[in-house]
Amino acid sequence: MAQDRTTDEATIRGRVDALLRAIRDRDVDGVMSVFAADVVSFDLGPPLSHGGGEVFRTHWRALFDAYRGQIEYDVRDLALAADGELAFSRSLNRMAGVAPDGQRAERWLRWTACWRRIGGDWLIVHEHVSVPVDLRTGRALTDLRP
Amino acid sequence: MAQDRTTDEATIRGRVDALLRAIRDRDVDGVMSVFAADVVSFDLGPPLSHGGGEVFRTHWRALFDAYRGQIEYDVRDLALAADGELAFSRSLNRMAGVAPDGQRAERWLRWTACWRRIGGDWLIVHEHVSVPVDLRTGRALTDLRP
Repeated sequence: MAQDRTTDEATIRGRVDALLRAIRDRDVDGVMSVFAADVVSFDLGPPLSHGGGEVFRTHWRALFDAYRGQIEYDVRDLALAADGELAFSRSLNRMAGVAPDGQRAERWLRWTACWRRIGGDWLIVHEHVSVPVDLRTGRALTDLRP
Repeated sequence: MAQDRTTDEATIRGRVDALLRAIRDRDVDGVMSVFAADVVSFDLGPPLSHGGGEVFRTHWRALFDAYRGQIEYDVRDLALAADGELAFSRSLNRMAGVAPDGQRAERWLRWTACWRRIGGDWLIVHEHVSVPVDLRTGRALTDLRP
């Protein structure tokens, strides 16, 4: 069991690496291959919750279009646990690049992913991406650093 | 195994109910009893990440102090999965009440919780609470409804 868990955790780390590469390469199919078809995403932008399929694909395309040139995407402090058919991971992710207006943008995102082994593949069935907010001012805190 | 999973999922739903009651009752000890001592929280407010113990307790006290009188707290669309020693859940949570300035505040939060069975008890080892943000304006979207 402990051996299985170690193997599964290594496999999931490999899936995270594949996701990072796909984001950097603006490879929407590569991104989609890491998510279950019916993934439920609590995403950085609205709505509160959105599902998989074409809507999810559209969100990724819009994210890629928010940068011109190279997209930088790194994961820091990735912690994950797997047991049986389930796993979860959390990390702080840095996304950076040059916006269409020429301004460089860099932000740190909190990322939680819930994984399930489906048909032999570890896939993300739920993810949650956010920045903290200042409730007194109503501002999103996009400039926090770990 | 399927029987175990069903039992575990029912147990965790009971833990969520206990958490809701503790929040409504402003019962910090009751809240803390649902979380692991070393929980890592990606909370609604800053910082990006904070840990368990006294800091976590202080955050809960501050949250309770942001309301006068009755705190309303409900969970909607709770989905959860358990296998072996791990589980994860997601839901949309409504928190409402009267702020110290007399204004009624209501907001819907996205909540993801990652659970582990520790010493026989299901405890939250990681949680993520957020609202979406509008990146063009930098505003936190605290008025979205499911």
